[in-house]
Order: sequence, then C-alpha cells, then structure tokens
Amino acid sequence: MAGRTRVWRYLEGSELVVENDEVAVEEPLEIRIANRAVSITMRTPGHDEELAAGFLLTEGIVFGPRDIVRIDPCAHARDGNVVNAILAPHAKVDFERLTRHVFASSSCGLCGKATIDAVRQRLEPLEGNVSIDPKVLLSLPQQLREAQQAFDRTGGLHAAGIFTADGQPVVVREDVGRHNAVDKVLGFGLLRGLLPFDRHVLMVSSRGSFEIMQKALAGRIPIVAAVSAPSSLAIEFALENGQMLVGFVRGNRMNIYSEPSRLIFSRQA
Amino acid sequence: MAGRTRVWRYLEGSELVVENDEVAVEEPLEIRIANRAVSITMRTPGHDEELAAGFLLTEGIVFGPRDIVRIDPCAHARDGNVVNAILAPHAKVDFERLTRHVFASSSCGLCGKATIDAVRQRLEPLEGNVSIDPKVLLSLPQQLREAQQAFDRTGGLHAAGIFTADGQPVVVREDVGRHNAVDKVLGFGLLRGLLPFDRHVLMVSSRGSFEIMQKALAGRIPIVAAVSAPSSLAIEFALENGQMLVGFVRGNRMNIYSEPSRLIFSRQA
Repeated sequence: MAGRTRVWRYLEGSELVVENDEVAVEEPLEIRIANRAVSITMRTPGHDEELAAGFLLTEGIVFGPRDIVRIDPCAHARDGNVVNAILAPHAKVDFERLTRHVFASSSCGLCGKATIDAVRQRLEPLEGNVSIDPKVLLSLPQQLREAQQAFDRTGGLHAAGIFTADGQPVVVREDVGRHNAVDKVLGFGLLRGLLPFDRHVLMVSSRGSFEIMQKALAGRIPIVAAVSAPSSLAIEFALENGQMLVGFVRGNRMNIYSEPSRLIFSRQA
Repeated sequence: MAGRTRVWRYLEGSELVVENDEVAVEEPLEIRIANRAVSITMRTPGHDEELAAGFLLTEGIVFGPRDIVRIDPCAHARDGNVVNAILAPHAKVDFERLTRHVFASSSCGLCGKATIDAVRQRLEPLEGNVSIDPKVLLSLPQQLREAQQAFDRTGGLHAAGIFTADGQPVVVREDVGRHNAVDKVLGFGLLRGLLPFDRHVLMVSSRGSFEIMQKALAGRIPIVAAVSAPSSLAIEFALENGQMLVGFVRGNRMNIYSEPSRLIFSRQA
C-alpha cells in the first residue's frame, strides 16, 4: 500500500524539483483478543486479518483455523487500525504469558532468553526430509520482487513469500515491518487451512534474524532463504531445529548456513 | 561485533565450498531499572550502556546525564546480557506507563496511537534555525560506511551516526537492530553530556521510519537522513515537528520530504 507525498528532489548541479511521489504507508495496528488489546504494531495497512492471525500463530495462541471464530476490524475504530479476534472456546489464552512475551519485544526484535526457552518447549524441531533444487532457491528473489506491488513505487517495503519446494509461489505479502510481512504470509496460510507449510520455503527480502526463524518454525517451514545476511542467533536456532537457512541469495550465488544436505542437484523422488 | 560461523558457499556450476565466515552477533539484552526488567531487545553486544541510556532517553525516562547514577552489567548474569540502571532519586519512573509503552512494541516498530500522543505531549517541536549544505548530506553515507567496523565483514549490521551540520562525525554505532543503533548514538551523547544534538544530523543506513524520527526528536536532532525510503508516518511526524527528513541519499542525489528550506547552497551565517 502506497500513499502520496510531496518530495523535493535534489541532484547535484541542478535546481530543487518539487514532485509528488509515492511512499510506503506506515500506521499502527492494535490487535485485540475478545476486545482486549494484546499488541500494537507499526504496519502497512492491508491484510490486517492475516497479520493478526499470523501474530496469534507465532505467539503460540492458535494452531489452526478451527481455533479462530473470526477476525474483524473493530466497528468503532474509524481509522481501521484495530482488529479484534474471537477465538474458539477451546482456545485458551494466557494473557499474562502473552503480555510478558510481547513486552519482551522492542526496537525491531522479539524476545529474549525467556522467549527462546518458551519456543523450545513449545515447538518440536523439524524432521529433515524436504529437499530443494538450488535453481529453485536462486529463482526466489526475482519471483518475490515481481510479486511486490508497492516496492517499485516506494522502495520502502519488505516482502515475505511462501513457495513450494519446487518453486511455485503460494503467497507474497509486503509491509514496512519485515516481521509483519512474515506474520501476514503465515496468517494467510492459517486462515486458508494451508498450514503446516512443511514442504515449503519462506523467502524474505531482508536479513535472516532469530525472530524470522522462530516464526518460520511456528509455521513448520523447513527452509528459510534471505536476500541479506543472517545473524548469529538465527544460525544457532536453525541448527538446533533442523531448519535450512540460506542467506545472500543473489544472482547465481548463495550461502547455506545449516542443513546443506537438503540441497539436491537433480530432482529424483 | 562479528562472530564465526561455518558456511557452505554455492555458486552455480561449482561444487559446494565449506568455509568459515563472519556473521553479525545477535543476542538478547535485558534492560533493568533498579533491578526491575523494563525491556528485552535483540541486539548486537557492545556499547550496551549506551543502548540502555538511549532507550531510557527515547522512552522519556531520563533527559540528561544527571538523571543517571550509573548503568552496569549485572554481576550475576554470566552471559553479559543484562544491564541495570541506577537512576538519580529525582528521576521518577512510571513503570506502568513504561510497560504500556514498551508493550506497544512488536515486530520491528515501537508505538501505536497512544504512543504518538504521549510523544506529542512530551516533546516540543523543533525551532527551525539549523541549515545544512547539500554537499554535507551527500557525504554522510560514505562517512557512515567507512566508520562501520563490522558491516564489511558480515553484511548484516545497520548503522546510525551523529554528524555536525558541517559534516564532522561525532559517533557511529552498529547493531542488528536499526533502532538499537539509534539508541546507541543517542546514549553516547547522553552519557557524555553532549545532548541536545540540536545542531546535528542523524544518518541511518536503513529506512526512515516513524520510530527513527521519534527517537531523533527525543535527542532534539533537527535533520535526519536515511539511505533508504521513508514511511508515510515518518514524513507526517517530521512535518509536524519541524524536522528535516531526507531519504534515498545516494551518490549525488537525495529526496527531501520536509523542511527543504534548511538546505543552504553556500554556507553564510
């Protein structure tokens, strides 16, 4: 989603030129469960229900579409920046744990030690039986870019995409926040009953951080590919949980940081 | 700060090559006030006291060096991932407000509507009397890059730098989290009694988000320049508060989104 703004373009040796330009929209979204606020995130409007569903999944509150009755925009929030999730009666929410967990977020990264431990307790490591052709991985940045509607206009949006292991796109979402983009594609899968994404690849336009790996594991995604660099903790997490982590996927090159045995050089069943 | 990892390098048409490589270190930092945890953030270790001081400043808890008695690593946290701030008796901490505020962080962006309002109440807009030569702005990305110690080795670190309006570097810090890098340079200024940075420029290697503008305003910085795109809300915030926001500073070009009158084409007092 792009908005309009005025911009003065400076080019050395020329006069300032005033133009209209498009920018990535950033607005707060408050996520509620049964009308109780559980998170506020700066996001690009659009696919808010998916963002909320992905948040609920990656926070360990819901695990499948049957856990959610519905997610609606709040009728009384005129700016459209509040969504409310009604969960199924069997879905128990530990608000205290959730608050502690979300509280542990700040400045571009979810979680601390307590969170890492919580995730380890909740999520089983993956079984290592999904392989991928390197040609498929190398094709993903271009596929991701082509599916980005707003990036070319604004230059300001991250993207996340889910692809099958043979390179078919399932969904691509954009957001000013790279974690939000991942929540949106996971929420898409959750709401449409497509989870687990256990034969799939998550491709992100950004770095591979700990939190990206954690969110991928919540969706049972065995392979994560990033255009840019991974962090030390992302690699550790991938090694511990059987995820293949690929970074610097650019042109005809990439770096594999874990589970290199998932790479297959010709596809044979 | 960079760590070592094993990497399998893939180049189309070649064999996988296993090497050792450097990656950006990402670890959680718990920030405490009087031994009470107020935030956990994923950060690159190093300059943790600055990060904590910058956090306290941008959260509106402290305003100058006299508000802080000291910030120390917790002795009993053997991994070095906990810092504790002892504030001066006159520095009052509203833990409830702080929790609500930090709670409003998640997925790469601080704050929601309530936060924006809180900042508006607390911080006065800037006075518009600092100008800058466009040549200075165009020189900053290269200066920032040259001061980055770990980026060239890892490709995975954001940077933030404070420069004087005539282009002299004051401090540059790196972090896996772009907001942390900004907190670190502000914390540097706070701890050394250099605030307000009201004749200075903040240059960031990343996008210009709402939160970057908000943090800059907490340090009274009149000019913010970003290598990449700004968001809609960053522009709105800059317009409302008299901040000059510059984006896409690349080569001999840049885009100015607010306060273009701060640009001077030859320096005359």
